[in-house]
Amino acid sequence: MAILQEPKKNYGRLKNYINGEWVDSVSTEVRNVVNPATTEVIAQVPLSTRNEAEKAIQAARDAFWEWRETPGVQRARYFFKLKELMERHFEEISRTLVQEMGKTIGEARGEMRRGIEEVEVACGVPALMQGYNSEDVAPGVDEECIRQPIGLFCCIPPFNFPALVPLEYMPYAVASGNTYIVKPTSDVPLCQMKIFELIHEAGFPPGVVNLVNGSREVVKVFLESPHIKGVSFVGSTPVAKEIYVTAAQNNKRAQCAGGAKNFVVVMPDAVLDKTIPSLITSFFGATGQRCLSGAVLLPVGDIYDEVKKRFVDAARRFKLGYGLDEETQMGPLYSKKHMESVVKYIEQGVREGAKLLLDGRGIKVEGYPNGYFVGPTIFDEVRQDMVIANEEIFGPVACIMRAESFDRALEIIDANRFGHSGIIFTSSGKWAREFEYRVQCGNIGINVGLAAPMAFFTLGGVQGRESFYGDLHGRKESLWFFTERKIVVRRWL
Amino acid sequence: MAILQEPKKNYGRLKNYINGEWVDSVSTEVRNVVNPATTEVIAQVPLSTRNEAEKAIQAARDAFWEWRETPGVQRARYFFKLKELMERHFEEISRTLVQEMGKTIGEARGEMRRGIEEVEVACGVPALMQGYNSEDVAPGVDEECIRQPIGLFCCIPPFNFPALVPLEYMPYAVASGNTYIVKPTSDVPLCQMKIFELIHEAGFPPGVVNLVNGSREVVKVFLESPHIKGVSFVGSTPVAKEIYVTAAQNNKRAQCAGGAKNFVVVMPDAVLDKTIPSLITSFFGATGQRCLSGAVLLPVGDIYDEVKKRFVDAARRFKLGYGLDEETQMGPLYSKKHMESVVKYIEQGVREGAKLLLDGRGIKVEGYPNGYFVGPTIFDEVRQDMVIANEEIFGPVACIMRAESFDRALEIIDANRFGHSGIIFTSSGKWAREFEYRVQCGNIGINVGLAAPMAFFTLGGVQGRESFYGDLHGRKESLWFFTERKIVVRRWL
Amino acid sequence: MAILQEPKKNYGRLKNYINGEWVDSVSTEVRNVVNPATTEVIAQVPLSTRNEAEKAIQAARDAFWEWRETPGVQRARYFFKLKELMERHFEEISRTLVQEMGKTIGEARGEMRRGIEEVEVACGVPALMQGYNSEDVAPGVDEECIRQPIGLFCCIPPFNFPALVPLEYMPYAVASGNTYIVKPTSDVPLCQMKIFELIHEAGFPPGVVNLVNGSREVVKVFLESPHIKGVSFVGSTPVAKEIYVTAAQNNKRAQCAGGAKNFVVVMPDAVLDKTIPSLITSFFGATGQRCLSGAVLLPVGDIYDEVKKRFVDAARRFKLGYGLDEETQMGPLYSKKHMESVVKYIEQGVREGAKLLLDGRGIKVEGYPNGYFVGPTIFDEVRQDMVIANEEIFGPVACIMRAESFDRALEIIDANRFGHSGIIFTSSGKWAREFEYRVQCGNIGINVGLAAPMAFFTLGGVQGRESFYGDLHGRKESLWFFTERKIVVRRWL
Amino acid sequence: MAILQEPKKNYGRLKNYINGEWVDSVSTEVRNVVNPATTEVIAQVPLSTRNEAEKAIQAARDAFWEWRETPGVQRARYFFKLKELMERHFEEISRTLVQEMGKTIGEARGEMRRGIEEVEVACGVPALMQGYNSEDVAPGVDEECIRQPIGLFCCIPPFNFPALVPLEYMPYAVASGNTYIVKPTSDVPLCQMKIFELIHEAGFPPGVVNLVNGSREVVKVFLESPHIKGVSFVGSTPVAKEIYVTAAQNNKRAQCAGGAKNFVVVMPDAVLDKTIPSLITSFFGATGQRCLSGAVLLPVGDIYDEVKKRFVDAARRFKLGYGLDEETQMGPLYSKKHMESVVKYIEQGVREGAKLLLDGRGIKVEGYPNGYFVGPTIFDEVRQDMVIANEEIFGPVACIMRAESFDRALEIIDANRFGHSGIIFTSSGKWAREFEYRVQCGNIGINVGLAAPMAFFTLGGVQGRESFYGDLHGRKESLWFFTERKIVVRRWL
Repeated sequence: MAILQEPKKNYGRLKNYINGEWVDSVSTEVRNVVNPATTEVIAQVPLSTRNEAEKAIQAARDAFWEWRETPGVQRARYFFKLKELMERHFEEISRTLVQEMGKTIGEARGEMRRGIEEVEVACGVPALMQGYNSEDVAPGVDEECIRQPIGLFCCIPPFNFPALVPLEYMPYAVASGNTYIVKPTSDVPLCQMKIFELIHEAGFPPGVVNLVNGSREVVKVFLESPHIKGVSFVGSTPVAKEIYVTAAQNNKRAQCAGGAKNFVVVMPDAVLDKTIPSLITSFFGATGQRCLSGAVLLPVGDIYDEVKKRFVDAARRFKLGYGLDEETQMGPLYSKKHMESVVKYIEQGVREGAKLLLDGRGIKVEGYPNGYFVGPTIFDEVRQDMVIANEEIFGPVACIMRAESFDRALEIIDANRFGHSGIIFTSSGKWAREFEYRVQCGNIGINVGLAAPMAFFTLGGVQGRESFYGDLHGRKESLWFFTERKIVVRRWL
Repeated sequence: MAILQEPKKNYGRLKNYINGEWVDSVSTEVRNVVNPATTEVIAQVPLSTRNEAEKAIQAARDAFWEWRETPGVQRARYFFKLKELMERHFEEISRTLVQEMGKTIGEARGEMRRGIEEVEVACGVPALMQGYNSEDVAPGVDEECIRQPIGLFCCIPPFNFPALVPLEYMPYAVASGNTYIVKPTSDVPLCQMKIFELIHEAGFPPGVVNLVNGSREVVKVFLESPHIKGVSFVGSTPVAKEIYVTAAQNNKRAQCAGGAKNFVVVMPDAVLDKTIPSLITSFFGATGQRCLSGAVLLPVGDIYDEVKKRFVDAARRFKLGYGLDEETQMGPLYSKKHMESVVKYIEQGVREGAKLLLDGRGIKVEGYPNGYFVGPTIFDEVRQDMVIANEEIFGPVACIMRAESFDRALEIIDANRFGHSGIIFTSSGKWAREFEYRVQCGNIGINVGLAAPMAFFTLGGVQGRESFYGDLHGRKESLWFFTERKIVVRRWL
Repeated sequence: MAILQEPKKNYGRLKNYINGEWVDSVSTEVRNVVNPATTEVIAQVPLSTRNEAEKAIQAARDAFWEWRETPGVQRARYFFKLKELMERHFEEISRTLVQEMGKTIGEARGEMRRGIEEVEVACGVPALMQGYNSEDVAPGVDEECIRQPIGLFCCIPPFNFPALVPLEYMPYAVASGNTYIVKPTSDVPLCQMKIFELIHEAGFPPGVVNLVNGSREVVKVFLESPHIKGVSFVGSTPVAKEIYVTAAQNNKRAQCAGGAKNFVVVMPDAVLDKTIPSLITSFFGATGQRCLSGAVLLPVGDIYDEVKKRFVDAARRFKLGYGLDEETQMGPLYSKKHMESVVKYIEQGVREGAKLLLDGRGIKVEGYPNGYFVGPTIFDEVRQDMVIANEEIFGPVACIMRAESFDRALEIIDANRFGHSGIIFTSSGKWAREFEYRVQCGNIGINVGLAAPMAFFTLGGVQGRESFYGDLHGRKESLWFFTERKIVVRRWL
Repeated sequence: MAILQEPKKNYGRLKNYINGEWVDSVSTEVRNVVNPATTEVIAQVPLSTRNEAEKAIQAARDAFWEWRETPGVQRARYFFKLKELMERHFEEISRTLVQEMGKTIGEARGEMRRGIEEVEVACGVPALMQGYNSEDVAPGVDEECIRQPIGLFCCIPPFNFPALVPLEYMPYAVASGNTYIVKPTSDVPLCQMKIFELIHEAGFPPGVVNLVNGSREVVKVFLESPHIKGVSFVGSTPVAKEIYVTAAQNNKRAQCAGGAKNFVVVMPDAVLDKTIPSLITSFFGATGQRCLSGAVLLPVGDIYDEVKKRFVDAARRFKLGYGLDEETQMGPLYSKKHMESVVKYIEQGVREGAKLLLDGRGIKVEGYPNGYFVGPTIFDEVRQDMVIANEEIFGPVACIMRAESFDRALEIIDANRFGHSGIIFTSSGKWAREFEYRVQCGNIGINVGLAAPMAFFTLGGVQGRESFYGDLHGRKESLWFFTERKIVVRRWL
């Protein structure tokens, strides 16, 4: 067991990054950052004060107009630099990510790669944010749609992708001419701090990108401030909805991603040898703490028994450990509290009468006796009315339900309230097309364990379900969120 | 004075159009439709019951899936037919519009023409709603963004463009595969009824497009129904905001247009001979009842006196009358209540100390002694802190304020809370560009009296001001509002 | 046998349509138009003189600038009208098409429907030809790409879709602001004449759209005239290439579609019950005279024998006759000369040693003893080196070759010089994706007999093969062909 | 006079870069690279053999399929790396560019910056080369347009932007999945060699990007090879046309930019203080050796005398010298031969009777007695029929012609055969719009001396004139040139 070296053992008390400077918070309210495998405290986060949040807002407001007048090609160039720096510090930040959040080093590298891809796509902003125009909409009258940045935006990310999520929004917002504040999740703030060190090094003008550590109070300031024009949130459904409604009341834009409960259909004609490893990654990768993780497995028809058997066998062999061990396949849950929540769901499943084929509770990982580990857990004979079949557990807990037919599988999926991601394994073009066409989910996978779209697409649940609130999603599509169009009708006399 | 023939003298009691049939409402609550020039009652609108609204919802729900599976090219073909029918009934509906709403026949024809243009653009839906795709986002993995219709939408239009406004939304929604309900404004429901007669003749499948007359109760049913996926509203700012927030709470899409207060800057280098007629149209056209109407005139610097003089002279010559008289340049306000409101604002201006250069109150129009007429009214020496300088009057009332400089004019505009439309008259490329670049309005006019965008653009105020709530506007842009994207990540094993 | 009524028995001597008027040609060189089923002469086409071609050019030049200044929305409106008229005369023109060209009434209606679809898409030109723009490409400098029409274009269509092909180009060219000349194929000019009657009725301004009957001499005038800015040609490969090179030499745009030899792969997992009818349509529909027709059938592996058997059985039952008989499934070839050419290819196949499973030569159709009929003809044991496996026969002649594997089938297809269309029948998502990804053809069908793209896509072979010469294809994509972009770099001092 | 340090005094004998390796040419035919200021020989270029050109073709063919299967996001990443390296070697390559070509260090840095911008835009290829798709084009039938790379392309650049021009094409071609050969101009090959050193360092797979030094023989091999799918050429009009026609004959794509003669209109309302410096840059920057350089000055009406006077005064003060001197404003012409050609044009102008206001012939630059210098030269009273008013001189020679009116200025411009770039200086929105709308040039400047579009637009002359042959230009637009679309019609049975 060769553990990779940690970048630091203790990161001390974190600072805010406001107006181009690292500043200490005056706050005495401090939260510990804990390595969930070792349970060591590795940093302290002061929860910033209302006044500090307002200072960041002021800095970002002051920086706006000059930044907005900076040519797009120059704004993009800061992101080219940031990408270069992220490549250079790739391994170091990946390891910090393991330390604070618990995922495996492979998963951490994957997250960093995805984050870099967001920055790469945002580098294309000069081409991506162009307006359009028509000559002669009436004799001698031309018309033009121009897209302009709006002002100040902020991001409130979740714990599970603490490096990536702000990068799904901030680069697009800032490259398109807005200024920005990130409020990292206070449990897992380290890699975002490190990314801001690179932002600093990249030389962004002061006030353009800011970081304020904190919790609900800071969010409250943001939502109430008339100067914040929009918010990108990723977290639980109740908070997503609350923020979305508050933003509506306060005349702000909002795009709020909430929970998920993702279903994975396996058709009888699936290529099982390659399907099973994908299922394992889908359900247990990132210890199940991904919005795109598989949650309910729906083998269709006769393939049920074989899928179940092979899935359980493979899950059983999945190796738990500390994420900095290259051999580890699954790390701990990110916090004690979250581990307890996952365990409670398992108990609930047992109580509800689901059949526990594999029980990850109480697992002991050598060398990490106090780590927040829960092993792969598989329930069979899950019924549609059980809590575990409906709520987001966000841990390595798979529910298996038999679906008699493709149509029945679709029915089960669409009865779920989230509508986030749907997956099908099949070799049939027909089933794949039917699935894409009909399933009410925003992220659809055909023979992939995770329907994780690239940055030059978008990501997110569909309208009217409970995994997403808003009209405009992140990534490339967010250029519509972060800019406002003006229509100019022009005539010369 | 040759009055054009009216299509009908009395339209009787109006019906709802539900599931492809004209049906009587059981409601006993009835509102009169009054010709505002003649004050004759020309129709009765029953305010539909909750149950009737629900029937329309049910019909539209039932029609959805089959309509959604109908190829776009076929869905568009119904709109080709509708366009053809609208051309054929162009004059007849235009006249009905004059009867019920009071605008001049020229304005009515303009409205109809604009409505037809919306239908024409929606005919292009097969090309306009395409998704996008990439090969090899990873080795052997392709990715696709598909755009699909969502379900049932509804429109709640205002009184001032009763023919046009539903056509700014419905054709895009329906052509892209959704089903629809229009609830016409109950004061001015006739031309929408006539358009639905054409919709019926065009042969849309039952339930695809529906009309329910009514008022707040019907709107309430719509906003509460989980089956209505989104609402397009045009009206006053308080209602716009209320509907937007309610939609957010109920997990619906919403695009809500509210009030406006539009400023018109005249620079010293403006070409006055051609500017003055545009100003008259801007401020007094449609009797000032347009969201894009000029409200405050800002002559910059020395040109002030001349602009004022020529503007007042021209306004004085503006001919009031019944809209069906081809010579009429300005009709009455659309209702008695609204006339009283406009008169109150004039009284308020007088009280506030503005100088009344031209007083349209109490004007008498020959042959229409009881018509709801207010003539062109011009206040000079208006100050930024007066109510008449800030609130939407929506009548033929112009406020003149002197701006010392271009920068000062911009300041005055951006201090206004609406941010809907800004106009500048100038011959200078430099001022025009500065204006477009900096003014915080969504609809910008350069040497045009009305910044009315074409249907193949979009229309609306900017984010964070009070003339529009939502991320996605009407017209071409509404295809993003009326469709949901799914991202498919596809691999074959 | 109930024959549909013919619109006319004899159409007399055809005229040119120049500058908004129908004018007689002074030419004494006249070609007969012959009904290929009845062999009756149904019209005479004078082959216009050089001077007449030049008059059309002059008319189109004179009309250009005013048409180009007409707003796009108004230009599109002529096409809305044309579409309406085409719907109204749908059946009549379809029947004329049968008379002159021999296809079945069903095929003729399909061609007309496709032609209408082109017009429908061109109606969307205001939205489709927009340019794009960026603010602040440098401080205070904006940049804009505007798309403008170019001038005069012409179309030289083939005999096989005499109604449709000009509509694949002209509406886009003209709606985007260019003027146009169509030179119908002189063997089959009638339905184009009828479409021009509708163009006349639609009220296009004189000179905007013109028709000149003629042959090579007229084409020569077009290619040499400096006033013709581009040419769209569909015909044989040698002529396509010649026109393309001549256009290059004369500084004109050109898009030239040539011949094809299309391969149809049937994988062992194809759904045969639905595949066989599609194969029949593919190979024998339109009597094999479609650029997208199947020519070589490639059953892969063991399915070979069954596909062959069922294909021959179905072909044997295909009913020949006069196209105006609704029961007819296959009409005659369009001309005597072409019939003789097809027969020669069959003889060639026999000489080369291919096994003739079904012989369509010498077939007698009751009531049409002299019609240019050749029945479905199927060769088995065709080898890659045979002439019939490589050259375009353009008749109802199918060659069957066994392919041992998918890879071998691809190899055979890509060895062919045309690269026009490739078809696969399979139920496997994997094979379909591999086929799309790898096959070097422009038009790809998955489980469809004809890979005929919709008008809101484009159509055509791929670069470097011999079915298409040019960079820009027809339909929606042709808006880049028919317009030129200007880049404006704009600063105000 | 502080001369910047040269990176090297002598670069020795240059190599080819084929299949990822630097290889010596066996050629004994060698050309000297001469510093045009010092006239020192600074390198030798062997003119590669036919066999060497074929080896590069083979390497690029072999590399194609694997490169084409590499995900776009990974292909783009090589360009992110290249951009980073170009930034790092920015100053060094800029100086080499001065040495070999003679331009000033400021101009060289400008060229490098523009080159980097091309690479930056090409980094966005995953978003820029997406295809599009529609569901349900018929019931159950979907359609997709996919864009795929084509194969091997090559670039034949001119002498005047030896670093930039290949970067206007290659990055787009290669990022979109094609392989590539650059054949630098043999007089000025050094900075391209240096860029290829960075390409090597960036780690592109062998064979993907290749460099072959040479002259006409190599070009001939390229044009004849069936494996080269397209060529991007920039140079003189006769060669551009010849290459375009040859490519057409050999079934290749081509985009060929030729000569230019650019007109600069100064309206009476121009802001002269800022206009004059722009004029100087336009006419004399890069010693007039830019395709976008001003060539004919057209002051309109009364402003004529003042413009002339101030233009000549400013030109007179323009400082000649060695480009590595930071104070130098204008360097020598790039070669002795070209200097002689420019001098001949001046003699021609004198002979034709134009009035020589400023004579740059025989100018002596201190320290560089043999340098190929010609100073700013200004002719007045130039007539439209003079050779100097029509042909491309490509040196620091300005012709002044008076235009009586705006319309007359336009007439003069459009009588010119090139149609490349047109410039207007005015403060009037009306004149600017008229100019953009009507002038037959591809690159239009409003109050800018050079209408040089950004990489996220495109560049080039208009159809039918003689500065460009082809349908598709470089830069962003070239993604259509470098990719082929396939249309897939897909149904599942």
